[in-house]
Amino acid sequence: MPIDLNADVGESFGAWTMGDDAAILRVVTSANVACGFHAGDPRTARRTCALAAEAGVAVGAHVAYRDLAGFGRRFLDVDPGELTDEVVYQIGALQALAAAAGTAVRYVKPHGALYNAIVHHRAQARAVAAAVRTVDPGLPILVLPGTVIEEEARAAGLRPVVEAFADRAYLPDGTLVPRSRPGAVVTDPQEVADRVVRMATEGTVTAVDGTAVRVRAESVCVHGDTPGAVALATAVREALDAAGVLVAGFR
Amino acid sequence: MPIDLNADVGESFGAWTMGDDAAILRVVTSANVACGFHAGDPRTARRTCALAAEAGVAVGAHVAYRDLAGFGRRFLDVDPGELTDEVVYQIGALQALAAAAGTAVRYVKPHGALYNAIVHHRAQARAVAAAVRTVDPGLPILVLPGTVIEEEARAAGLRPVVEAFADRAYLPDGTLVPRSRPGAVVTDPQEVADRVVRMATEGTVTAVDGTAVRVRAESVCVHGDTPGAVALATAVREALDAAGVLVAGFR
Amino acid sequence: MPIDLNADVGESFGAWTMGDDAAILRVVTSANVACGFHAGDPRTARRTCALAAEAGVAVGAHVAYRDLAGFGRRFLDVDPGELTDEVVYQIGALQALAAAAGTAVRYVKPHGALYNAIVHHRAQARAVAAAVRTVDPGLPILVLPGTVIEEEARAAGLRPVVEAFADRAYLPDGTLVPRSRPGAVVTDPQEVADRVVRMATEGTVTAVDGTAVRVRAESVCVHGDTPGAVALATAVREALDAAGVLVAGFR
Amino acid sequence: MPIDLNADVGESFGAWTMGDDAAILRVVTSANVACGFHAGDPRTARRTCALAAEAGVAVGAHVAYRDLAGFGRRFLDVDPGELTDEVVYQIGALQALAAAAGTAVRYVKPHGALYNAIVHHRAQARAVAAAVRTVDPGLPILVLPGTVIEEEARAAGLRPVVEAFADRAYLPDGTLVPRSRPGAVVTDPQEVADRVVRMATEGTVTAVDGTAVRVRAESVCVHGDTPGAVALATAVREALDAAGVLVAGFR
Repeated sequence: MPIDLNADVGESFGAWTMGDDAAILRVVTSANVACGFHAGDPRTARRTCALAAEAGVAVGAHVAYRDLAGFGRRFLDVDPGELTDEVVYQIGALQALAAAAGTAVRYVKPHGALYNAIVHHRAQARAVAAAVRTVDPGLPILVLPGTVIEEEARAAGLRPVVEAFADRAYLPDGTLVPRSRPGAVVTDPQEVADRVVRMATEGTVTAVDGTAVRVRAESVCVHGDTPGAVALATAVREALDAAGVLVAGFR
Repeated sequence: MPIDLNADVGESFGAWTMGDDAAILRVVTSANVACGFHAGDPRTARRTCALAAEAGVAVGAHVAYRDLAGFGRRFLDVDPGELTDEVVYQIGALQALAAAAGTAVRYVKPHGALYNAIVHHRAQARAVAAAVRTVDPGLPILVLPGTVIEEEARAAGLRPVVEAFADRAYLPDGTLVPRSRPGAVVTDPQEVADRVVRMATEGTVTAVDGTAVRVRAESVCVHGDTPGAVALATAVREALDAAGVLVAGFR
Repeated sequence: MPIDLNADVGESFGAWTMGDDAAILRVVTSANVACGFHAGDPRTARRTCALAAEAGVAVGAHVAYRDLAGFGRRFLDVDPGELTDEVVYQIGALQALAAAAGTAVRYVKPHGALYNAIVHHRAQARAVAAAVRTVDPGLPILVLPGTVIEEEARAAGLRPVVEAFADRAYLPDGTLVPRSRPGAVVTDPQEVADRVVRMATEGTVTAVDGTAVRVRAESVCVHGDTPGAVALATAVREALDAAGVLVAGFR
Repeated sequence: MPIDLNADVGESFGAWTMGDDAAILRVVTSANVACGFHAGDPRTARRTCALAAEAGVAVGAHVAYRDLAGFGRRFLDVDPGELTDEVVYQIGALQALAAAAGTAVRYVKPHGALYNAIVHHRAQARAVAAAVRTVDPGLPILVLPGTVIEEEARAAGLRPVVEAFADRAYLPDGTLVPRSRPGAVVTDPQEVADRVVRMATEGTVTAVDGTAVRVRAESVCVHGDTPGAVALATAVREALDAAGVLVAGFR
């Protein structure tokens, strides 16, 4: 079975640069492009879509809370109806810029605190699913498996695409070790690459207690916001290629 | 020949209200809906599109400089390439919200300081025309006649729709009396209504020196941001109806 | 014992107007002036301070979450260290504008969702208290009595000024009826005025079950964001004057 | 005569980093700290003030147009009265954060497009001078010599501190070669260092035509936003120290 690799890109803003998008776009098959609410600006978004198109990488709308100052990483108790409209706005804006860059929005991925909230916050999860459905019921949505947003996406007639995290440690129940705990992040490139290969070939990951746990994943999220992150993502890609795993978009 | 009436709507923002959109939408045939850069937010934009759809009024994207604090009324020396992408972003965002509200974006109207700048600022005019063309060359753009933006719109293969202003005084050369001068605005509802009827039926307006000057207008802009403005717009509409002028969208 | 009346003012933003500040400043003795994070802009803040100075009303810094789009009414899970610095920033900005208007910031009142959060959220409450102490330990802070922020203010060596709400219904335990419940707001001007007089003279309020409950209040919050609100606040002031209660700032 | 070195710092924003402030603060004697309008946030501003205090570097308020998306680099036709209040707001906010960091705002430097505008735009220049005077007539203002802002600062009773640019080429009339022209920026560290030494010791700089022109400078502006810029600034400082020039703040 093929595996998709996704990463966050287009997160520069005005005079501020973040990440090496050109480098990470040589590695991944899906690009989560910021839509201007947590990061990104119209020029950055269009250029990033153009880079993705050139690299043959699928563009996704990386929708977020309206919070530039906090980079979308802080829970915001936004009204669900308003959240729906904000997500519609972001997808629409990126659709126009993606089209201008010769490509199209192929999926949606919620960002940061919104991603984390809709793991369990039903009203916001439903609001996000409603937004995607409103824009285009054919757009898949990238989600953490076994979550409220997976349920709500399905209930809305959307296709949830489940993802795993290349560099995050897992608990024996298959959930992520919270970032606040030591050992939450795996940093050794070789170890990370091995884990992703195992996710792709066996569908399992070694949890913090040493047991192998099942992990459902059609896509694996890698990072590209630091030079180290790009190197790690590259190691993952090379290991998958070497293991004969087909790395390809999920559509 | 039919005449279109257009007005700015959807300019509330968050907790702040502006204008009586429901009232003005009973009068006009084209609604310039704010896209979030000078005013408007996703929820307001969607609701306004829904109101317009219900009233049978065409939705236009009221694109602007990125300047909420200044309501888009201050010249901003934005890079033309960036301006193009910002206009694409705004149109795309409104397209998605208009679709969610059961309608569609039918035209584009630049707002405030941007509207005034592209009367003469060629680089910004070209940037705006490029944006509209990029999104959809079939979208008309509302412009002041005889201006750089009219030229640039035409050069880009777009359809410029020329407009007149219901309550503005005209100079003998057919241009507007600058707002900084006394008598720039006509305030008497009956006089305004008479002027618009004459624009629609004879294609002329009485200039400040008493001469009749030709005024090209497929659309007439009215205001709705104060109770008085709504009353004036209503007087204009009633006078046109009474004079047997067909008031209808320009498409 | 004298009683203070406080109200939110300076909440216009750019082209958008909110409330009738001039009218409400004739009624209250303390003015909570927005600092630009949930509402207000530098020009509005300075003008509002000037109006307050002219009316002999004390200026308070109405500090808030950084959330113009949500008017500061949505909980934001901001880092406490960052919140402290944001509150310092807001107070400092208003101090300079108040000085420019010939007055000074006399107290601090947290706004909206921040006000509600620090009723129970200890880390944010401590962050706000730390900010006030950092700027000036002599600045009182307006708080709901019996709350975490009252404790934290006292622990930081600040003077908490406890307030009651003119138009809110109370539960038998002395807390407010949540806004989500019917009957949370008292709307009859005479009834509101009578309640405030009783708060000021007897220190009690009639709870929703008819029992009289004690209410500690050095200040009573009234609203001025609608014509009706101004009328109600005026009724409160007149009733206090008629009852011989001294209405005066808490310093 | 001693010479001051100044640089822009505190220009990170939220998740985005800009410049190596700690490195540049080891080189300069005056730190232009962003106030949140073009860059900077309360946390960054406070930390930067603390770093400056620790390094014995004077803190200046780097005031700007309200334009985060454009980093304050685009002319904005803001109303002068509003500009005054915005500058007061920014200085006040930084004063509170500087005090929290154990230091104080010692001067004001306009940023970017505002700096360039008030070279010739009298109404905006007067507005900036009025703001500084309002906050504290004892605060010097860093300006380009021979400009409208130098005049207006003096007319307002302020002390203008004139500055030169370490890495900019000069025309024979003593003005800067516009950035749009080739050769506007000098990039060789040794050449830049030699030029600054000559400015400090002889009061002259070699213009693009080879002639020596007088340059009035109490302060020299260096950059720290790239690794190369820090190296260049360090070369300047070392050359001044080696030449026996006292590098010290202008107060």
